[in-house]
Amino acid sequence: MGDTIFGKIIRREIPADIVYEDEEVLAFKDIAPQAPIHILIIPKKEIPTANDIQEEDAPLIGKLFIVAKKLAKEFGVDESGYRLVINCNKDAGQAVYHLHLHLLGGRKFTWPPG
Amino acid sequence: MGDTIFGKIIRREIPADIVYEDEEVLAFKDIAPQAPIHILIIPKKEIPTANDIQEEDAPLIGKLFIVAKKLAKEFGVDESGYRLVINCNKDAGQAVYHLHLHLLGGRKFTWPPG
Repeated sequence: MGDTIFGKIIRREIPADIVYEDEEVLAFKDIAPQAPIHILIIPKKEIPTANDIQEEDAPLIGKLFIVAKKLAKEFGVDESGYRLVINCNKDAGQAVYHLHLHLLGGRKFTWPPG
Repeated sequence: MGDTIFGKIIRREIPADIVYEDEEVLAFKDIAPQAPIHILIIPKKEIPTANDIQEEDAPLIGKLFIVAKKLAKEFGVDESGYRLVINCNKDAGQAVYHLHLHLLGGRKFTWPPG
């Protein structure tokens, strides 16, 4: 498993406020929240960027969204609304090279998305 | 199939600048682009919002990202970077109630994402 900060969180080498875990997926609160609800949902499989998603990863990537919608409901933002974001590479500001889905909710979001 | 504008695009009742199509997925340029590259990638299956994604839809949702990464490469933003966004409900500004993935690239994106 890659030596990113998220790999360390998966291996419990550094702490995180974990809100969901199963065999394939981990979710925890972003340490620099950009909204009242800001959760990162990651595959345990090391996929550095969206460019690295392979055909066989499709069910796993879809599962990130199953987890996202469940967390949105659990945290009470499913009806009010939420924004889901994946950043790929430098122009988008990808900060950690372990694929992660941002779930942001609890406030209104403007357009464009950054 | 639902009577959204995207349903009409799928059925070719209204025009769109289509850049990808297969049995399950359609992709076309956003008519109000927020970046030099701004493509919408949608499942042909009518899924109104992210809240409506079912367990059995996981492979289909993942496939949207397989298509996204291919289009990012085709349009020359895979290395520079791109942002992928799904808006759910009012706070996020969801404008059409047929699930759609925004692929935005060709410029730098700020944080937070709206």
